[in-house]
Amino acid sequence: MTTRIGIAGIAGRMGRLLAEEVPTAGASVAGGTLRSGTAPAGIQVLPDFGALCGASEVVIDFTHAGNARTHAATAAETGTPLVLGSSGLSLEDEAAVAEAAKRVAIVYAANFAPGVNLFLAIAERMAAALPPEQYDAEIVEMHHRQKVDAPSGTAIALGRAVAAGRGTTLEAAGIESGRDGHCGARGTGTIGFAALRGGQVVGEHTLVFAAGSEHISLTHKSFDRRVYATGAVRAALWLKGRAPGLYGMKDVLGM
Amino acid sequence: MTTRIGIAGIAGRMGRLLAEEVPTAGASVAGGTLRSGTAPAGIQVLPDFGALCGASEVVIDFTHAGNARTHAATAAETGTPLVLGSSGLSLEDEAAVAEAAKRVAIVYAANFAPGVNLFLAIAERMAAALPPEQYDAEIVEMHHRQKVDAPSGTAIALGRAVAAGRGTTLEAAGIESGRDGHCGARGTGTIGFAALRGGQVVGEHTLVFAAGSEHISLTHKSFDRRVYATGAVRAALWLKGRAPGLYGMKDVLGM
Amino acid sequence: MTTRIGIAGIAGRMGRLLAEEVPTAGASVAGGTLRSGTAPAGIQVLPDFGALCGASEVVIDFTHAGNARTHAATAAETGTPLVLGSSGLSLEDEAAVAEAAKRVAIVYAANFAPGVNLFLAIAERMAAALPPEQYDAEIVEMHHRQKVDAPSGTAIALGRAVAAGRGTTLEAAGIESGRDGHCGARGTGTIGFAALRGGQVVGEHTLVFAAGSEHISLTHKSFDRRVYATGAVRAALWLKGRAPGLYGMKDVLGM
Amino acid sequence: MTTRIGIAGIAGRMGRLLAEEVPTAGASVAGGTLRSGTAPAGIQVLPDFGALCGASEVVIDFTHAGNARTHAATAAETGTPLVLGSSGLSLEDEAAVAEAAKRVAIVYAANFAPGVNLFLAIAERMAAALPPEQYDAEIVEMHHRQKVDAPSGTAIALGRAVAAGRGTTLEAAGIESGRDGHCGARGTGTIGFAALRGGQVVGEHTLVFAAGSEHISLTHKSFDRRVYATGAVRAALWLKGRAPGLYGMKDVLGM
Repeated sequence: MTTRIGIAGIAGRMGRLLAEEVPTAGASVAGGTLRSGTAPAGIQVLPDFGALCGASEVVIDFTHAGNARTHAATAAETGTPLVLGSSGLSLEDEAAVAEAAKRVAIVYAANFAPGVNLFLAIAERMAAALPPEQYDAEIVEMHHRQKVDAPSGTAIALGRAVAAGRGTTLEAAGIESGRDGHCGARGTGTIGFAALRGGQVVGEHTLVFAAGSEHISLTHKSFDRRVYATGAVRAALWLKGRAPGLYGMKDVLGM
Repeated sequence: MTTRIGIAGIAGRMGRLLAEEVPTAGASVAGGTLRSGTAPAGIQVLPDFGALCGASEVVIDFTHAGNARTHAATAAETGTPLVLGSSGLSLEDEAAVAEAAKRVAIVYAANFAPGVNLFLAIAERMAAALPPEQYDAEIVEMHHRQKVDAPSGTAIALGRAVAAGRGTTLEAAGIESGRDGHCGARGTGTIGFAALRGGQVVGEHTLVFAAGSEHISLTHKSFDRRVYATGAVRAALWLKGRAPGLYGMKDVLGM
Repeated sequence: MTTRIGIAGIAGRMGRLLAEEVPTAGASVAGGTLRSGTAPAGIQVLPDFGALCGASEVVIDFTHAGNARTHAATAAETGTPLVLGSSGLSLEDEAAVAEAAKRVAIVYAANFAPGVNLFLAIAERMAAALPPEQYDAEIVEMHHRQKVDAPSGTAIALGRAVAAGRGTTLEAAGIESGRDGHCGARGTGTIGFAALRGGQVVGEHTLVFAAGSEHISLTHKSFDRRVYATGAVRAALWLKGRAPGLYGMKDVLGM
Repeated sequence: MTTRIGIAGIAGRMGRLLAEEVPTAGASVAGGTLRSGTAPAGIQVLPDFGALCGASEVVIDFTHAGNARTHAATAAETGTPLVLGSSGLSLEDEAAVAEAAKRVAIVYAANFAPGVNLFLAIAERMAAALPPEQYDAEIVEMHHRQKVDAPSGTAIALGRAVAAGRGTTLEAAGIESGRDGHCGARGTGTIGFAALRGGQVVGEHTLVFAAGSEHISLTHKSFDRRVYATGAVRAALWLKGRAPGLYGMKDVLGM
């Protein structure tokens, strides 16, 4: 039997990508909810999130932060495992989700791209193995020309992972971001950031550990926002039959 | 007190590099043995491997495979931890080293470059996390123009690490090496190899996991054979005071 | 006044991409022809290629090789400049196109991606400047997992460009493609090829010139087949008012 | 007959590299001058620059800017072609060198690495062919951890080459260097710079032209300062028998 997955917000950009990914992963779409717009052809529209939980073995919700508390509570009441990908949750929202997770299995993550999560886990491990006195850590990212800030959130998360691997924090390690002009020799143990902007790059991140006689580097490239849908469906399949608890993508990916 | 490290074969290419690296790492050279040639200035020459063990807290031996058994036995008798980097040991030699390691701590490895060992460990972990149905694993390496065979030994080791991470072997997974002509579509789960030759490249290896919407890749570049000396000295410092046992670079690097 | 561009085969994959690109480039679609299917909304369908020429200032034709002769002749008769992107023309077809080009301006090319054409021109120039005794030329390409042959046509074109820059041919220079096993040291002056396959890569090509103390490399990445449409529309705008003659993308790009 | 090349400052770092490169290139060292230290074994020491010119078919001078005027004048008087690689010449020095070059052939350049000069020439050509409205130009460089300023001089030279190819100047095009924080969307036609620092990298430069559906990039890597000696010797061989004039590395490389 294929797993029946419900999708909240089926008419949105992420909902539509999810609806395409579910059958690709060998599962079936149990139905969807929508506030406006129309569902993709052949998908049953359910009146509310509770009905969606009732019709589904697992539910995926990328709608918005304002729904997180009530959706998590409903999932707990109906015993339906939940993949929660909404961003911008407050600390109170997150506490409510954690509370619900005592009664039902929930995966909650900021980024569902499997490669990005793997990248973060490996960055920490590499940093733990390579002494900062010998290996300079540099992070370079490239994004599309419309992006207004630098470094990217993922670049900063990478920096935090490197610092954690070294038993410190990014702030304590020292940041060298956007070198320009006379900036002096590189500080030992600091973490460097550089940003490129151009074209329509969805996201490229490289972390280099540079020593005198060897370099080791890790690169992640996203070509398509679809990767987030792929990761979320994978989390849903992993959740089915899982004990209550609050899980992250590290758990899903076995890292 | 700095750690006093003895170096077998002090007059050879590797011995000289080790003699330079030991003080750089904050340790001191206790002395060296040599068959011919002259020791670097200021280094005490000892008459044989036993005397070297007597004068040293840890000994490093990159001489040759033929010495491995007797050196390991001498290290065990004198209770001197040993870093063994000689290559080409027979299975009998390896068994004798393992036997000696019941009485003294020995690090034995084929490649002491920290980055290469980290690379192999991470390759296995990445492969375990990324489903082979979605992520095609490709390995590309570049070496100097004199190299006569392909793929490199390290590339093959990487392929084995990927296969192990996927719960299989390289042979069972399937190898696509040196594509040329009409070779058909890529097989799911196979591991691809490609080799570049040119200039005086000491060694570059890249492992790519390529899915439809993301790529994640890992690259290692060696610029200098000195990196092997750096790794060996690091192993020596790690060995001091260590309980008897046969260790690898994974242990030294905490991976 | 915007340039009015006609599109042969408006209902096909390439025709639809062209119809989207023309307004983006500040021109307008004069109309299209089709054999079957339906035209994109708002585009006038014309009964045949002659009528399309009559309604257009320039015509773009990516239909198929079998149409090339008659379309080129019609363009010449009506005095309508033609961008011809059909592939697989026979030598006779090419001769007929060249004959028509004595009376009207025609751009005919195998690949309309501006970057690829620039890449080929630069590869030749680099090869002319870098002595083959010192700089080893290696070409590595990556394509999607479905691709059945190696090296890619563009990789071979790159190899031919390198050979031409060195005053020889690819065959005379010597090809080292798909190294595997004991293949011996690299031959001086030969051109190496390596192929990676994975994911859904549209096309990546890198040409490296590797000497002992420096490497210089050139990389082209295609993310979207749309780049061919962009190049064809650019050729069309360049053609307007141009004297009769057979032009290539090198002319369009001013290389 | 091999070309006899004289080397000013034979005992310096550059002089010694030149003495090694000359025979490698099939030429012979005619002799050298020195202020202090000792010449490499087997090389005749001449009393002054005039005597060096008398004994040589071509002379290479990488000593220092203060010698440039008098050395150029002496080369002109003795009719000995000169390769001048000293850096930091004043405008007056340069004028004097140009004056001398009316009577004898002189190659004067800031960077003798063949690949860097080729890189600069190609960057300009690429920039001329790729419209700035569609192709964002980004330059990223990496150097050793001791380097105190950013971007590197070669990166800036690359930026100037891109601007020249676009018919403007770097200042007029606009510079986006060291992005950090909220820096807004990328400006059309601007040139971006990013700097990485780590390990002992001699010099790596990449220029990317990034459009929505293709990227084309050029990378140069220096592994060894020896490349400057190789370029200078190549210039010397090219100079022999050349008509008076002031030449650059572009002329030597036929670009």
